[in-house]
Amino acid sequence: MIDEKLEQSEPLSPVVSEVEAKILAGNFGTPVFGYSQDILEEQANKALAFPNAYGITVRYAMKANPNSNILRIFDQVGLHIDASSGYEAERAIKAKILPGKISLTSQLIPGNGRKLIEQGVNYVACSLDQLEWYGKFFPNSDVSVRINPGKGSGGTKRTNTGGPSSSFGIWHEEIPEVLTILKKYGLNMTRYHSHIGSGSDPKVWKKVAFMNLENILKFIKAGHNINTANFGGGYKVGRMSYEKSTDLQECGEPIKQAFVDFAKQTGVELKLEIEPGTFLVANAGALVSRVVDVKSTPKYKFLITDAGMPEITRPALYGAQHPISIVQVFKSFKKECYIVSGKCCESGDILTPAKTNPEKLQPRLLPEAVVGDLVVIGGAGAYCSGMCTKNYNSYPEAAEVLIDKEDGIRLIRERQTLEQMTQNEIAVV
Amino acid sequence: MIDEKLEQSEPLSPVVSEVEAKILAGNFGTPVFGYSQDILEEQANKALAFPNAYGITVRYAMKANPNSNILRIFDQVGLHIDASSGYEAERAIKAKILPGKISLTSQLIPGNGRKLIEQGVNYVACSLDQLEWYGKFFPNSDVSVRINPGKGSGGTKRTNTGGPSSSFGIWHEEIPEVLTILKKYGLNMTRYHSHIGSGSDPKVWKKVAFMNLENILKFIKAGHNINTANFGGGYKVGRMSYEKSTDLQECGEPIKQAFVDFAKQTGVELKLEIEPGTFLVANAGALVSRVVDVKSTPKYKFLITDAGMPEITRPALYGAQHPISIVQVFKSFKKECYIVSGKCCESGDILTPAKTNPEKLQPRLLPEAVVGDLVVIGGAGAYCSGMCTKNYNSYPEAAEVLIDKEDGIRLIRERQTLEQMTQNEIAVV
Repeated sequence: MIDEKLEQSEPLSPVVSEVEAKILAGNFGTPVFGYSQDILEEQANKALAFPNAYGITVRYAMKANPNSNILRIFDQVGLHIDASSGYEAERAIKAKILPGKISLTSQLIPGNGRKLIEQGVNYVACSLDQLEWYGKFFPNSDVSVRINPGKGSGGTKRTNTGGPSSSFGIWHEEIPEVLTILKKYGLNMTRYHSHIGSGSDPKVWKKVAFMNLENILKFIKAGHNINTANFGGGYKVGRMSYEKSTDLQECGEPIKQAFVDFAKQTGVELKLEIEPGTFLVANAGALVSRVVDVKSTPKYKFLITDAGMPEITRPALYGAQHPISIVQVFKSFKKECYIVSGKCCESGDILTPAKTNPEKLQPRLLPEAVVGDLVVIGGAGAYCSGMCTKNYNSYPEAAEVLIDKEDGIRLIRERQTLEQMTQNEIAVV
Repeated sequence: MIDEKLEQSEPLSPVVSEVEAKILAGNFGTPVFGYSQDILEEQANKALAFPNAYGITVRYAMKANPNSNILRIFDQVGLHIDASSGYEAERAIKAKILPGKISLTSQLIPGNGRKLIEQGVNYVACSLDQLEWYGKFFPNSDVSVRINPGKGSGGTKRTNTGGPSSSFGIWHEEIPEVLTILKKYGLNMTRYHSHIGSGSDPKVWKKVAFMNLENILKFIKAGHNINTANFGGGYKVGRMSYEKSTDLQECGEPIKQAFVDFAKQTGVELKLEIEPGTFLVANAGALVSRVVDVKSTPKYKFLITDAGMPEITRPALYGAQHPISIVQVFKSFKKECYIVSGKCCESGDILTPAKTNPEKLQPRLLPEAVVGDLVVIGGAGAYCSGMCTKNYNSYPEAAEVLIDKEDGIRLIRERQTLEQMTQNEIAVV
């Protein structure tokens, strides 16, 4: 049941210095998320430098972290938005993102879908039904369609976002049906969407890109003016020092060349769109928590923190590894092996699961910690605050703070109150 | 990667009739949680009938579902409360539960801990540090202590709540240290707490009960007036028709006998406490959602619903199985094999994972469904609304409804608004 392989200590997250971690904890309490504006901008600029032949639009997959300040930081650097639901699109508009910069790709037709499109949001039809719906309300207009090219690049054992085990997009063999609906409503398909999936093996990327270009050709041959190919996101970044980050240059070069060849062959110069989430925010965030207890059994020493599943569910959900650092109140150079545990009354609330196996434990070598020391969990910018079992054990949504060299440390989300947590309850009993 | 074993159709959740499912969806929108007051009360009465020799207190583990109306329904039937955090205890008091009926067992010392204890909440010290803290502020008073007896009854492969891989409670070999702290502060230990864990093999239960009674004897011999033994919860219930529910009578009889023997031996008649969560609420809840799309690849037919991880994370987190029924708009007797998928742009948002393996898919035989049909997900009363990746993809917290024979259908939590979801954000950029 236990994987005894010891995980080594990781360096402190670049998001906070030891002093900043103490300031965050002292001024805003723990647990608190810190985000580095510098790293956010740096990653955005790396994404904008993705190899491309005829222009690029980088859309931030806002589900990774939807705080409005993060959306505006990316907007100012020139990114556009990928929204996964009608709520996300509305949230982005509320954050002052221009509707024309938002692309909406959802598993369902949002209740506010028509209103969003009328405001200028770019709709991506992800099923034949969605395309019918769009055609009915917006005939003789431009449209985007998401195709499942038949293969994906899933980096985990998880179900894939491309290929026959994925429900995302329209299966490529149904392109004739797509063409029929496009024709029926006089629609002009200008943008081809295909999210290849989490994981970014350049070979798979290249292969799937070619499959997508073949599909695009089918639409062009049918008279559609496709000018943009959206290849989605899923660019992995290493959170742990031994994990590899995607080299966007390596990933993008063959695609750039393929676009050049495609233009030679067809005369169509395709603009590229990509939709990174994790790549932009994962390592720009850290979760600062506190050691609240240290306990032992003959097998393990447990370090219990006041963060856990309600703020960071990825370890419990995926066995995901996050760098963990201790900021000691009193300096000591002793090291100790710990299972780092969350605060919930839940056996699975463990921050040091075995790699990709949330069912197993994996002790980690850390500086010796005492109650009151801070625990900085790195790589916490993506899918932590945005995808957590919020309010479990009735813990409130954590505070969020933006850290910037020029403007210092600023609160961008206050900690939720118990009053707010229960504000929609109606007493009938 | 794919487990092809086909899951059979399950009967409609007893929480809603087909007509009620349509009323819920029509009046409150989808997704919406429905809870049956009758089933809640029925389960509470079953728990109160747990075999016992000298009285019993049943504490509802409110983390399973903390809606205030559910707390009050249980309060009215005579249950007490098990709170896992200071927030939960405060939430229960806000719901008009008397503080004296609340037991607080937490992985950390809550910020409001002293205030809660002063109000009358019963504190369970779960570590030597917690006991020191309690002694310092409440010397010469009664106290409860949680002990890890060295063995647990975990029903899944998950990390356990008892035994050397668990951080819950004080390791039993540290009882001498506990006695020292109790003595130091003149504390009288009146209640012994030991949560044995999820899963309820009667044999393991009996064995651990004996281990606990031996520990209790050590405290009694040291002069403590232990009058209550709390053995926690973790009584499994079958959500799927093939899953077995715990027989509380079978589970409890040997313990009752052990208490009688213990009284003969020591003269101490122990009152029993148990802390069920799942047992009380799991099958009293159903999640009513709608088919929003039906799609195919050569491998699978996908039925996409407007519920998913933001309402029910257990399938993605644990590979948990929930009964799924279709309430058709137009009756058809055709059957179809579906992968039921959630609404999120997340490959893991699957409602039909393979058993205990969220990494694999398992198609389920269901009545043929079309867009607009309802999808009723049974067994959704415990750890669904209370433990979900709320607001992921910016979907709002779902509405909750109470169904009662006499009082009909009443809204007990309104659907969250986007305004509320972002109410704590502060614009600084």
